Amino acid sequence: MPQRTDIGVGMVGYAFMGRAHSQAWRTVGRAFDVPLTPRLAAVCGRDKAATKEAAERLGWAAVETDWRALIARDDVQLIDICSPGDMHASIAIAALAAGKHVLCEKPLANTLTEAEEMAAAAGTAYGRGARAMVGFNYRRIPALALARQLIQRGSVGTLRHVRAVYLQDWLTDADAPFTWRMQAERAGSGALGDLGAHIVDLAHYLTGDVITGVSALTATFTKERTPPGGSQPQPVTVDDAALFIARLGGGALASFEATRYATGRKNGLRIELNGSAGSLAFDLERLNELEFYDHAQDSTTAGFRRILVTEPTHPYLDGWWPPGHTLGWEHTFTHQARDLLTAIAAGEAPEPSFADGLRVQRVLDAVQRSAAVGSEWVAVNGG
Amino acid sequence: MPQRTDIGVGMVGYAFMGRAHSQAWRTVGRAFDVPLTPRLAAVCGRDKAATKEAAERLGWAAVETDWRALIARDDVQLIDICSPGDMHASIAIAALAAGKHVLCEKPLANTLTEAEEMAAAAGTAYGRGARAMVGFNYRRIPALALARQLIQRGSVGTLRHVRAVYLQDWLTDADAPFTWRMQAERAGSGALGDLGAHIVDLAHYLTGDVITGVSALTATFTKERTPPGGSQPQPVTVDDAALFIARLGGGALASFEATRYATGRKNGLRIELNGSAGSLAFDLERLNELEFYDHAQDSTTAGFRRILVTEPTHPYLDGWWPPGHTLGWEHTFTHQARDLLTAIAAGEAPEPSFADGLRVQRVLDAVQRSAAVGSEWVAVNGG
Amino acid sequence: MPQRTDIGVGMVGYAFMGRAHSQAWRTVGRAFDVPLTPRLAAVCGRDKAATKEAAERLGWAAVETDWRALIARDDVQLIDICSPGDMHASIAIAALAAGKHVLCEKPLANTLTEAEEMAAAAGTAYGRGARAMVGFNYRRIPALALARQLIQRGSVGTLRHVRAVYLQDWLTDADAPFTWRMQAERAGSGALGDLGAHIVDLAHYLTGDVITGVSALTATFTKERTPPGGSQPQPVTVDDAALFIARLGGGALASFEATRYATGRKNGLRIELNGSAGSLAFDLERLNELEFYDHAQDSTTAGFRRILVTEPTHPYLDGWWPPGHTLGWEHTFTHQARDLLTAIAAGEAPEPSFADGLRVQRVLDAVQRSAAVGSEWVAVNGG
Amino acid sequence: MPQRTDIGVGMVGYAFMGRAHSQAWRTVGRAFDVPLTPRLAAVCGRDKAATKEAAERLGWAAVETDWRALIARDDVQLIDICSPGDMHASIAIAALAAGKHVLCEKPLANTLTEAEEMAAAAGTAYGRGARAMVGFNYRRIPALALARQLIQRGSVGTLRHVRAVYLQDWLTDADAPFTWRMQAERAGSGALGDLGAHIVDLAHYLTGDVITGVSALTATFTKERTPPGGSQPQPVTVDDAALFIARLGGGALASFEATRYATGRKNGLRIELNGSAGSLAFDLERLNELEFYDHAQDSTTAGFRRILVTEPTHPYLDGWWPPGHTLGWEHTFTHQARDLLTAIAAGEAPEPSFADGLRVQRVLDAVQRSAAVGSEWVAVNGG
Repeated sequence: MPQRTDIGVGMVGYAFMGRAHSQAWRTVGRAFDVPLTPRLAAVCGRDKAATKEAAERLGWAAVETDWRALIARDDVQLIDICSPGDMHASIAIAALAAGKHVLCEKPLANTLTEAEEMAAAAGTAYGRGARAMVGFNYRRIPALALARQLIQRGSVGTLRHVRAVYLQDWLTDADAPFTWRMQAERAGSGALGDLGAHIVDLAHYLTGDVITGVSALTATFTKERTPPGGSQPQPVTVDDAALFIARLGGGALASFEATRYATGRKNGLRIELNGSAGSLAFDLERLNELEFYDHAQDSTTAGFRRILVTEPTHPYLDGWWPPGHTLGWEHTFTHQARDLLTAIAAGEAPEPSFADGLRVQRVLDAVQRSAAVGSEWVAVNGG
Repeated sequence: MPQRTDIGVGMVGYAFMGRAHSQAWRTVGRAFDVPLTPRLAAVCGRDKAATKEAAERLGWAAVETDWRALIARDDVQLIDICSPGDMHASIAIAALAAGKHVLCEKPLANTLTEAEEMAAAAGTAYGRGARAMVGFNYRRIPALALARQLIQRGSVGTLRHVRAVYLQDWLTDADAPFTWRMQAERAGSGALGDLGAHIVDLAHYLTGDVITGVSALTATFTKERTPPGGSQPQPVTVDDAALFIARLGGGALASFEATRYATGRKNGLRIELNGSAGSLAFDLERLNELEFYDHAQDSTTAGFRRILVTEPTHPYLDGWWPPGHTLGWEHTFTHQARDLLTAIAAGEAPEPSFADGLRVQRVLDAVQRSAAVGSEWVAVNGG
Repeated sequence: MPQRTDIGVGMVGYAFMGRAHSQAWRTVGRAFDVPLTPRLAAVCGRDKAATKEAAERLGWAAVETDWRALIARDDVQLIDICSPGDMHASIAIAALAAGKHVLCEKPLANTLTEAEEMAAAAGTAYGRGARAMVGFNYRRIPALALARQLIQRGSVGTLRHVRAVYLQDWLTDADAPFTWRMQAERAGSGALGDLGAHIVDLAHYLTGDVITGVSALTATFTKERTPPGGSQPQPVTVDDAALFIARLGGGALASFEATRYATGRKNGLRIELNGSAGSLAFDLERLNELEFYDHAQDSTTAGFRRILVTEPTHPYLDGWWPPGHTLGWEHTFTHQARDLLTAIAAGEAPEPSFADGLRVQRVLDAVQRSAAVGSEWVAVNGG
Repeated sequence: MPQRTDIGVGMVGYAFMGRAHSQAWRTVGRAFDVPLTPRLAAVCGRDKAATKEAAERLGWAAVETDWRALIARDDVQLIDICSPGDMHASIAIAALAAGKHVLCEKPLANTLTEAEEMAAAAGTAYGRGARAMVGFNYRRIPALALARQLIQRGSVGTLRHVRAVYLQDWLTDADAPFTWRMQAERAGSGALGDLGAHIVDLAHYLTGDVITGVSALTATFTKERTPPGGSQPQPVTVDDAALFIARLGGGALASFEATRYATGRKNGLRIELNGSAGSLAFDLERLNELEFYDHAQDSTTAGFRRILVTEPTHPYLDGWWPPGHTLGWEHTFTHQARDLLTAIAAGEAPEPSFADGLRVQRVLDAVQRSAAVGSEWVAVNGG
């Protein structure tokens, strides 16, 4: 094994995303021959005691309570932003300005303006050697990476349809507690930014095309909720569900839906693409599988085939187990870490870039504007 | 077995739909205790020789080449309209005026005006004892009839989402031949009226609610096609695909898609409903199954359950086989015949009525208008 | 349409199987261009009134209460035996002796001796122009007929494994009533003959090979049951479940299981075959589908593909509907009727022949003998 | 977080299993509140350079080339045996004698005699405080742990049927290379010990019952194979496939099949149980799902429900992610590590014990003996 260089990682936030990222940083060098070995240098949180306990549990060497101090650390070369969306822009821009690489959770920002500033900052920093990536981890699902390969080699042909939904149900009950995810000023939006951002990015990633316009509906079914342990209901200022129809630059029609009210659907991200040469279908609840219909087959034996994406020839599978030994949701973060470290070491631009994140943000912004004006068609700017 | 009265049926058209209806008329009295026994009195078509051959094959006693003559026959009490949409209004209105019962294939008509006239005619005729029904046969799928029962008894609760697609792929290939189904003046619309009408009607039927507004996109991917044996390409004047988002009166959000370009999907009508108490999902390619999620279950054992809808307690199953012995697509027509004959004998109003058909037509019309004006929101009139 | 000759059918029994056969006789000439048009001449049952009512309901022109009289009728050329197994041999042998064609429900007989006599009688009658067929209707499922075609053209290669189960659950409850199906002297055996016979025949049909030996277990979980309305429990003298491992002549290993105690499985006939070139899998609860794995595919896109067996190029589909419009369980009988009528008209030997039925019977007999002697290996005689 | 004590782990072998175990040792303390923190003290292999490279990659602090030296290390309290089966007995017995805890990969041993000696050694060591566990990791799949809970609380009722298969296909091709897994003296048996052992243990685990007798068939389809890079074919002295029928102590019937020739099945471990109160079904290729049929449900809404086993109330899920975020194959080892560490700290007996491993071994032995004498019934001794 060749000698590897270390890279110090500083992470902001240690909740759900922070735990998943920690597992990735600890694991990536064990599974893959990455050119840089991540060192879990420091984790940052507001509450010192809680952050210390998280650091111990998750394997971080040091603790910070101010993200500026985290960025300032000499032993940190990469800032991993796992905090809520309202902090993304400040931290990312400061980190890039300080010459640190940045991995930022999705969605890139809470507002289009912030996203634009972040993309600009990433552009400037790129010339100075700092790399920025947005954490659309589902691009790293082997089945979806395979889907993209198939599309790139023409297996779908001229694209006609994209239909994507991301269905969860954790707000179905009216008495589910109020959290920061229901506050527009913290989360930016609701299901739209949390779930919709993923399927918009996947549509861009898989097709290599972009959404050029949308017509949208959103709804907030439950207008106020009570915080855990609280007695005073708080207004819910984000959407519970968002759906929209769209056109892609190449002429395909698309539909998208994100909701937290799809009772019984726990993590129901489904995406299907139909083209002149074939079709692909994917369901996150069965993430080791990709369905592929090859239109070139004789109609007598044609059918959607269920590819178990665990072969050594499949993307990311060289780091893992023999065929048929499935991966889980968390592996997407390990793959993300691998790709980011590889790009940094090679001096290349990691994907999805902040520009990719901005592209998603423009679509989300168009969705919100369309929904606000009675579902009028809204063109997506910039593209 | 009680003595049954006969009812003479006269059918217009003997192609795909005519064959399916014939099988239903021949079978219904064998499978079910219907109060009226259908007599296959006469079939009507333009080409006498071809119609005669069809009559012999399908079991019709006589042949007509003019639908007016068919209506005029004394031995015909029920006119079954299986011809293309441009003939529906004339035939149905004349038949009702002549005091005949009418079963009319879907969509009810090619234009909203025709549909309104038909609904009015049905209303007038009703008072004089003639019954009219539109052939949305998928209401008669046992799994969907069961879905409606579950919804009516509260198993879905407050409805939040409807998502429905009807995916076929027979126009995927650019060299598929030109037919009357691609002509606006014959077919009214393309995928929208042929496929979209079904899922709109099902949304109304299952929810007991109505679509109040839409925002829509349509596309004609292949602009001209050549008739079989022909050399001159003809312009395709209908949509290849239509998708729209919608609101229901009760506040639920909905999305619909109909296409003939979903490569690999042969008869992919799928509908899912999510509500506060549960969810339902159905796929026409597996029409004996209904998926049901009961939110009242303990989360430890909760899950979408696959109900094999072949139990004697399931709708329409009393006429058929023991549990597990599945039905096919054609049985929906037999069930439709049963319900129509039962309603006629009882003097009740069969469902879906022409008013129900008109309600669907209003949605289709709103979809076309929205698509024509850049996906603007269009309210569905009348309701 | 060419002028067709009639063939008079006389059916013995009008219960479950009789109803299904009646639907087939009524329908076959409407769906397919059969060379002989079946005439539903007479149905035979012990109770005159009940038989009359059945005749009227099912469309039979006349009624007999003695099967000998049925055979003697001049207007009957084909005897269709739908009565319990203890009557098969007598009726079939007499009918063949009288020069009538015979369709006999499966399993061929209750004992090996009877089956041998029947096969001998069919052999003799064949030379005199009478045809005999045993009603293994599942050979007529389009998906399984397609499976056989694929195997014949080498898509599975050298066969290694057959695994087949037929799972039902109608005896799960200890208070399910006693019927003739639980009496050895009426039914021959229990799950073994009723369900196991089907999967043994399918293994023979699909592979073109035969079972050469077995090692078996059977069980009767509930030792006595009470007849409907009765008070006196009766001993159950047949098996509730039977399972066995087997070898095929060509070297493949096989396993079979038939049970009426598989709670939740309503009609769970599943069969899978694995060979050097590919695999096939089928489930009767989804009878329009065949799963096929083609080992020649690149491993990157290989996977079990779900073939929706509704294409015009698929077996039996030319008589029915466009792609994606599924068939049900009852259609197998219509296909069976088509094949029998075609063979009779062509003077050919219909399949499965009584010799095929005897081959199944020999396996069932070996299973019972193995189970009786502590699962010892029992070679299947004759082969 | 409470202060935890370390426990030094010494691992023998670093190939496929060693990699999976390493990931578990590194991860378990991050995901779960285990009372002992595993320290990856030393890994042992024959080739020093290769072992060193593996140690560096997998995170082990030191290297040994003699397993006796590994056992002798003061910083090692737990020996983790991941080497081929022919080494299991010697290492485990020596380690236990030295007072070390032992985790031994499955199957427990290559011969029944070895397994008996190991179980005896574990019994003796237990009294002196050393714990022994055999690595049937599939007991730690949340869906199967849930299955066992459901069975224990009576959801399946009186058990009637167990059917289990473990299907792989990596030897389908005649030119797959010869390895130690095809040598009886190294591997003990072929598919039987490698795959069959898992499903036998699961049958014991899930039912709480034991297999009391078997009738078996085995086959070696390809008699010799050539080692990688070699030219001389070597005889294959293990089975390619094994299948058997069995009885359980409580009266249920069971069938088992293990094969490396099921083309297209990559890791097809499937197990189904049917009982008077319900049924359960599981497929390793979809390991986050459990299918459950509750016979107490009204037949109108009864059906196999797909439980996505990712809820916080499900076994092992408290260490991981929110509902719907699936786990992979490797997590079973992390769960195994958690349970072993917990048992060691509590002074309790971990499960599956060496006695459980011996119980499986007795079944495998009976299978081999039955297959050797023409599938005669062989009682499983000891029990």
